[in-house]
Formats: sequence, structure tokens, C-alpha cells
Amino acid sequence: MKSLNNVLAEGTYSVEKEDLLCYGYDASGLDVLPAAVVWPTTAADISKLMQFAYQNDIKVIPRGAGTGLTGGSVAANDSIILSFEKMNRIIEVDMRNLNVVVEPGVINGDLQRALKDQGYFYPPDPASLNTCTIGGNVAENAGGPRALKYGVTRDYVMQLEAVLPDGRLIRTGVQTKKSVVGYDLTRLLVGSEGTLAVITKIRLKVLPLPENVITLLAAFNSLEYAGKSVSRIIADGIIPRTMELMDRMTLSAVNKYKNVGFPEDIEAMLLIEIDGSTKAIAADIDKVANICNGFQGKVKIAEDSASRELLWDARRAVSPALYKLSPTKINEDVVVPVTKVPELLSGLQGISEAAGVPIACFGHAGDGNIHVNIMTDKNDKQKYDEAEKLVRKTFKLTLELGGSISGEHGIGLTKSKYIDMELDSVNLDIMRGIKKLFDAKNILNPGKIFPPAAGSDVR
Amino acid sequence: MKSLNNVLAEGTYSVEKEDLLCYGYDASGLDVLPAAVVWPTTAADISKLMQFAYQNDIKVIPRGAGTGLTGGSVAANDSIILSFEKMNRIIEVDMRNLNVVVEPGVINGDLQRALKDQGYFYPPDPASLNTCTIGGNVAENAGGPRALKYGVTRDYVMQLEAVLPDGRLIRTGVQTKKSVVGYDLTRLLVGSEGTLAVITKIRLKVLPLPENVITLLAAFNSLEYAGKSVSRIIADGIIPRTMELMDRMTLSAVNKYKNVGFPEDIEAMLLIEIDGSTKAIAADIDKVANICNGFQGKVKIAEDSASRELLWDARRAVSPALYKLSPTKINEDVVVPVTKVPELLSGLQGISEAAGVPIACFGHAGDGNIHVNIMTDKNDKQKYDEAEKLVRKTFKLTLELGGSISGEHGIGLTKSKYIDMELDSVNLDIMRGIKKLFDAKNILNPGKIFPPAAGSDVR
Ligand SMILES: Cc1cc2nc3c(=O)[nH]c(=O)nc-3n(C[C@H](O)[C@H](O)[C@H](O)COP(=O)(O)OP(=O)(O)OC[C@H]3O[C@@H](n4cnc5c(N)ncnc54)[C@H](O)[C@@H]3O)c2cc1C
Ligand SMILES: Cc1cc2nc3c(=O)[nH]c(=O)nc-3n(C[C@H](O)[C@H](O)[C@H](O)COP(=O)(O)OP(=O)(O)OC[C@H]3O[C@@H](n4cnc5c(N)ncnc54)[C@H](O)[C@@H]3O)c2cc1C
Repeated sequence: MKSLNNVLAEGTYSVEKEDLLCYGYDASGLDVLPAAVVWPTTAADISKLMQFAYQNDIKVIPRGAGTGLTGGSVAANDSIILSFEKMNRIIEVDMRNLNVVVEPGVINGDLQRALKDQGYFYPPDPASLNTCTIGGNVAENAGGPRALKYGVTRDYVMQLEAVLPDGRLIRTGVQTKKSVVGYDLTRLLVGSEGTLAVITKIRLKVLPLPENVITLLAAFNSLEYAGKSVSRIIADGIIPRTMELMDRMTLSAVNKYKNVGFPEDIEAMLLIEIDGSTKAIAADIDKVANICNGFQGKVKIAEDSASRELLWDARRAVSPALYKLSPTKINEDVVVPVTKVPELLSGLQGISEAAGVPIACFGHAGDGNIHVNIMTDKNDKQKYDEAEKLVRKTFKLTLELGGSISGEHGIGLTKSKYIDMELDSVNLDIMRGIKKLFDAKNILNPGKIFPPAAGSDVR
Repeated sequence: MKSLNNVLAEGTYSVEKEDLLCYGYDASGLDVLPAAVVWPTTAADISKLMQFAYQNDIKVIPRGAGTGLTGGSVAANDSIILSFEKMNRIIEVDMRNLNVVVEPGVINGDLQRALKDQGYFYPPDPASLNTCTIGGNVAENAGGPRALKYGVTRDYVMQLEAVLPDGRLIRTGVQTKKSVVGYDLTRLLVGSEGTLAVITKIRLKVLPLPENVITLLAAFNSLEYAGKSVSRIIADGIIPRTMELMDRMTLSAVNKYKNVGFPEDIEAMLLIEIDGSTKAIAADIDKVANICNGFQGKVKIAEDSASRELLWDARRAVSPALYKLSPTKINEDVVVPVTKVPELLSGLQGISEAAGVPIACFGHAGDGNIHVNIMTDKNDKQKYDEAEKLVRKTFKLTLELGGSISGEHGIGLTKSKYIDMELDSVNLDIMRGIKKLFDAKNILNPGKIFPPAAGSDVR
């Protein structure tokens, strides 16, 4: 891709193998070597590059931190990776109107820290927050433990600046809390997994920090009872900010990885947080404890912020820890109505036992969003094929329970062949039409989201 | 339109003049006689009708209760009005998962009452709630006083069933709290003002009723100080569910109309409500009272629910009351960042004084959403033209303050000629592309939202 030097300044891109290798994969485990990596610093850079790419039919793949779990930022052959390390400024902090403007390369955790110093927070907190970027969060409509009370990225994006595949700059949304002026392009771009436009600037709503937070751990001898506690808490009108679930296998993996001393003789643990005014949460935490007790849960309260941080370190270590349990894990992220969580969990136990394949479950149970980890070994073809079959079974169960096949990780490459289990042909037709409207030449992150043509490889 | 009897059963439609007259107008004051009115009872009816209309190039206009203020449901010549009176069932109430499924013709207030009996509520509460339909609310992305704390319709729509202009049925969204599976068609349809699809079924998120509500009235001798109180309250991290503003002219109009005894020797009044747990709100209400006092506001608390209802009756009477002040009012609904409310209000006072045209302001000040009522007389052409010029001035001021020309009433017909003040050609291009993708023949609610071709009438 020599001709890049016609559009890009020296030092802003690379075609060196060692660089390409660093940008060829994401957390899904897939990898493809791109032809070039570009580090833009402005929207104008990106606009110029996209015009060039559009004219020359070159594929471009936006990439945040590559923590995506479905291959969304994995390169295509002969493609350019667009990486936002150099666009990582917090541009504007407007606390009187409760919003901030950031570049797409800002790390979620960096934004959290900058806000906390001033008494505010940005609710979406993916477990990957110390690595993932706001641009990636917007493209994936990321969630996180706090989504239970506070919602997902979509609920916080007010305005976007983006570059269309043909290089035109577009500004969507408003600085105000509401507006009905034409179609909602902002929310069309949120969750579009980098297939419609390159996001170059983001205005996010933020909130004042709550007065107080209480963290509660509940240990259960039955996975189903843990699930039942979750749905009872919601039905009783209590809205904790977080209800995270870890099953037996997850707990033991985290113990091995971090030595945090989680009990291992139990079947499930819930990590529940309630925030708000000190007085209001005291009452709620009692109710939560009572409900857990009613399902034979043993409750412990983390009194100080140090022990709370320890718990969260452990929770955030779940994903890496599980990688240590078996050579490969197939990672799904299904979501069901919260009353269906017990049925989902027992259904998954059934699937696991019937196939003799271990499945570890953890995740944002209060949202009905369970991360299903099917343990296998990529290098043992028979074993892997066996495990892969369970994906379809998991999705079938999820959809029967009124759920969705992805709560927060998106479709990317790894789930594109399953998307038509959830979306019918009318939906896919309209979505393909939208893709074509934005990207007539199919150069921006091609091959993601939509089902691969029959007979082709996943990619 | 004789041939309708080929597709529709007798009694489900009418072409009688007296029926057509009842469906030819909306609250914008515009009117056009349709050729037929159809009262479907199922999505299948609508699907059949749309297929017929699509094949025969017949325009179809979805219509809720006609309370829209921008002409969204006004007919076009030779068009069919699709009216949802007979699709007004609450189909499913799932309190354990905090959601309900309704047909589009359900009146917002009827849903509120059904939920209240069970201890729940649906936050969006347009002042027109006793008349307007949920279908119309979804199509306009309606707000209301409570939007300040709880957000707008968009934030509560989980799933939609809709009929596309060519008659195909589409189901969008999920029953779960989150999902990232393809583009967000649900939020593309919300606020699309009946131009993309006919909405036939809606799943809405609902919430448990708060433990308690306190209503506070604050009277100010300066409109600007009322505005400053609003923005200070927000900046101090207090989130009332409501902060409604009424200026002097509005107060006097309501007094005349309802005889509620609002003070008339003041410049502005704020109607503030805080909800939540009894303990938490007591502290917040003190803070709010202190802030208002700091801006020389006189504060009174409505102790019981009867006096609270009286206040709300008065607030909801504002719009009809203002109609009594002058033969015609031009009704705008601009929104600015909340810190800019004082500047907006003083700017509008300036515009009014300079032109010698009375302007009454009221609205959802806590959202920065001010209803600007320019008082004039349609039958006095010179006077009316003079007043109409102030619309563009109002929008210019709004946009300079970082605002948007419509907070909740949409664009419809009355604002379509102004939309390009806010949206540039790239936005309009993409939006036109989306309209074409859904409605290649431009038969569904044509002429709404998009700027009229140069030289044509508003319609
Ligand atoms: C340990 C671990 C824990 C996780 N926990 C959570 C969790 O709790 N909740 C959750 O939601 N996710 C979670 N994830 C998934 C992942 O972190 C999120 O999807 C995150 O939003 C991806 O951000 P990223 O910057 O790494 O983006 P990438 O992975 O680099 O890219 C993701 C997608 O975004 C697109 N993209 C990136 N930047 C832009 C841009 N500027 N413009 C347009 N498109 C762009 C890419 O093309 C790609 O399709 C987790 C992942 C890991 C590894
Ligand atoms: C006194 C008064 C107070 C008001 N206060 C508020 C307020 O506080 N907040 C606010 O947001 N608005 C307010 N409004 C405006 C109005 O009530 C809202 O826009 C409301 O959502 C319109 O609902 P409707 O059923 O009357 O719809 P209509 O006016 O009949 O139609 C509105 C639009 O929706 C479309 N539509 C209707 N049903 C469907 C369907 N099933 N499928 C597809 N499209 C459809 C129509 O084509 C049209 O474009 C007020 C109006 C009045 C008169």
C-alpha cells in the first residue's frame, strides 16, 4: 500500500510487519494481518483517508483497543487498520450541563478517573474499562455491571461526529436532553460495530457520584436459587446498580488466578451493589439481604472501599482467569428477561451435562445478561466441533426464553453466522439497505454483523 | 376511493364527508380533507391495506389522537387516514419484568391509570396525556414534565411491531434490557413521525411508583432569576422529576381560563416536583427551596395530593388557556442546554419587545425545553407575517445557544421549512436515503419532516 504516502504524513502510518502484527487480532482470538496501520490525529485526517480508500476500493477497519470479543476490529485481507491511540483527548468538560466531549481513543477508565476527581461518573463500566476505548464502547453499545441501574452506552451518547465511508463528515444529535428533529442517526451509529461510519468525537452525558455505595456478597448452594434471588429483587422494585453472578467454576478459576479466597464449596455467588443516598440504600440493602436469605443465601457486606475494590478486582479478573481453565473458551453473552434467568441457568447446566462439556457462567445477572463460557480446546478438532454445537443450542434456549443472542458484545465476525436465528429476513433486508446507504462500496469494516454468504468461511 | 371495498371489510372504513371532516386536522391548526378514513383492528388489516396502497400509489397517513402540534397527522390530498381507535388494548402486563405490551391506540392516560392501580407508572407524561395515544407518542418521541428525571419515550420503547409501506410486517427490538444484534431499528422508528412505518404494537418499560412525591411552587419577580434557579438546581446535582416554568402572560392566561388564583404580580413561577424515598426527598426539597430563595423566589409546598392535582390541572390547561389570549398563537418548542435557559428567556423577551409582538413562555425548563408562544392573528396578514418572522429569530437564537428547534413536538409540516437551519445537507441526505429505503414510493405520510421543494407551499 505504497500510495498511502500521497494522503498521509510520514509517521502517521506503518506498513511494517512488526506493526501489522500488533494490530491484526482482537480479544476474540481471531487474527488477520492488515496491509497498513494508520494513526490519525484529526477527523480531517480520517476524512482524507476515507476519500482515498473509497476511490480506490480499499477496506478500512476502525479499531479501538481490540478488547472486543466478537472480532469486530479484526482486519480483512489487504485492509487498513485505523487506530485511535493519538485521538485520546478529553476535549470538553461541562459539569454544569452534565456532559463531556471526548475523542474516540480515550480509555474508559481514564475518563472515569478524570470525572471521579470532580465528583462525577460515566455509568457504562465494561469489565475491560482499563483498556477499552470510548469509541469501541460506542461502536459496541457496551454495557457493564452498572448497566442494571444506569443503562448502556446508548443511553449516554448525546452527539457524535463521524466520517462516512466516502469521507464526508457528519455531526449527529444534540447538546440538549431531548430533540425530535429528523431521524435518530446518533442511535443508529451506536452499536453499529464500525460498519456505518468512523466515530471521531463523542459527547457523553455524565452523572454526579452517588452519596454512597454498599456492596454485598451472597453465597448460594444452588445456582438456580441465586438466579431466583436476582429476579425476586427486581420484581420487588429494588434497583441495585449491580447484580453480578459467578458460578462454581468461575469462582474456582478466579481463586486460582488471583488467590482472593472466594468460597469454593458453593454453587454460586452474587455480587450486589446499591448506591444512592445513605439513608435510602440502608433500607434497600436490608430487603436484598432478606430475599437472599429466603433462598438460603449467606450474606456478607463489604464495609470499606478497600475490600470493595478487592472484590471488583476479582470480578474483573473473571475473563482472563477462565482462559487458564482450558486451552480455548467459546465465549457467548446471551441475555434473557430477568425472570427467565433461573431457567436459562438450569437449561445451560442441562446442555453442559448432556454433552459432557464444561460451561462456566458469570455476568450481569440483574440485566438477565449471562456470559456463557464453553470450555474446549481449539487444537482438538473433534472436541472443538462438539463444543461449537453447544453455541447453537445455547442460542436456541435463549431465544425460546424471549432473549437475545448478544447482550453487549455484538455480532462482529464470530456470531454473524447465527444472527439469522434472531433476526428475520425483513430485519436483515432493512439493515443491509442501511449498510448500503452509508457504505455503497462496502469498504468500511466489511464482513462484520451480516451473515456470511452460504458456503463461505466465517470470514 | 371506491376500490377500498376490495381490501377492507364494511364498517372498517368510511368515505363520508362528515367522517372525513373529523379526521382532517390536528392541534397544529392545519387541515386537509382525506379521501377515506380507515379503522383497522389488526396488524394484518394494516398490512393488507398498505400492500394495496403501495401497489396503487395511494398516500396513507397514520393518525393517533391528532394532538400533534406540528401537523404530523394532517392528511394529504387524496390520502387515506389510518386511525387507531379500535387498536386500543393493553395486551400484556408483565410486572415481574417491568414491561407492558400495548396497541398503538391506547391513550397515554388510560395506561397511566391501569398501571397506577398496580403500583407502577409509565414515565412519559405529555400534558396531552388524557387524549394522546401511545402510537403518537412513539412516533413523536414525546416527552412531558417528568422527562427531566426519567427521559423521553425513546428511553422506554423496548420492542416495536410495525408495517412497512410495502405491507411487510417487521418486529424490532428485544424483551431484554440490552442487546447488540444488528442496527437499532427500534430507535430509528421512534420519533420518525409516521414516515417510515406504521406502528402496530409496542412493548414499553415501566417503573415502580416512587415512595413519595413533594410538589413545590416558587414565585419570582424576574424571569431570568427563575431560569437561573433552574440551572443552579441541576448544576448542584439535584434531579427533580419536574421543573415547569410559567411566565407572567401564561399565569394570567391560566387564571382567566381556570380561575386557579395564581399570583399575577410576579414575572415567573416554577412548579417543581421531587420524587423518591421519603427520607431522600426531604433533604433535596430543602436544597431546592434554598436555591430559589437565593434568587429571591418565594417558595410554597403543596402538602396533599388534592392541592397537587389542582396545580397539575392548571399546568395542563396552559396550552388551551393561551389560545384564549389572542386569535392565533404560533407555537414553538425549542430546547437549549439547561445553563442557557436564562439567556434564552431574556433573548426571547428582547425579540418580543423589539417587534412589539407578545410572546408567552412556559414549559419543561429543567430540560431546557421552552414552549415559545408567539401571539398573533391569522386573519390579519401583516400582523401574522410579522409574527412569523420571529420564528426564524427564535430558532437562530436557540441554535446559537447550542440548542435544537424541537424538543418534543417534532417537525411535521409546520417546521419542515426550518429543519435545514439545524441539519446540514449531509444529515438530510442520509435521512432522505433512509426514508427512500423504507418507502421507495413515498406513500407513507409524505411531505412531513423534509424541507419542501423550493417555491412550494408548506404542504
Ligand atoms: C476482559 C474483558 C471484559 C469485558 N467486559 C465487558 C463488559 O463488561 N461489557 C461490555 O459491553 N463489553 C465487555 N468486553 C468487550 C469489549 O471490551 C467491549 O466491546 C468494548 O466496547 C470494545 O472496545 P475497544 O476499544 O476494545 O474496541 P475494539 O475491540 O477495538 O473494537 C470494537 C468494535 O468497535 C469498532 N470501533 C472501534 N473504534 C471505533 C471508532 N472510533 N469508530 C467506529 N468504530 C469503531 C471496531 O471496528 C469494532 O467493530 C470485555 C472484553 C474483555 C476482553
Ligand atoms: C395541550 C397539548 C399539550 C401537549 N403537551 C405535550 C408534552 O408535554 N410533551 C410532548 O411531547 N408533546 C405534547 N403535545 C404534543 C402531542 O400531544 C404529542 O406529540 C403526542 O405524542 C401526539 O400523539 P397523538 O396520538 O395525538 O398523535 P397524532 O397527533 O395523531 O400524530 C402525531 C404523529 O404520529 C404519527 N402516528 C400516530 N400514530 C402512529 C402509528 N401508530 N404509527 C406510526 N405513526 C403514527 C402521525 O402520523 C403523526 O406524524 C401536546 C399537545 C397538546 C395539544
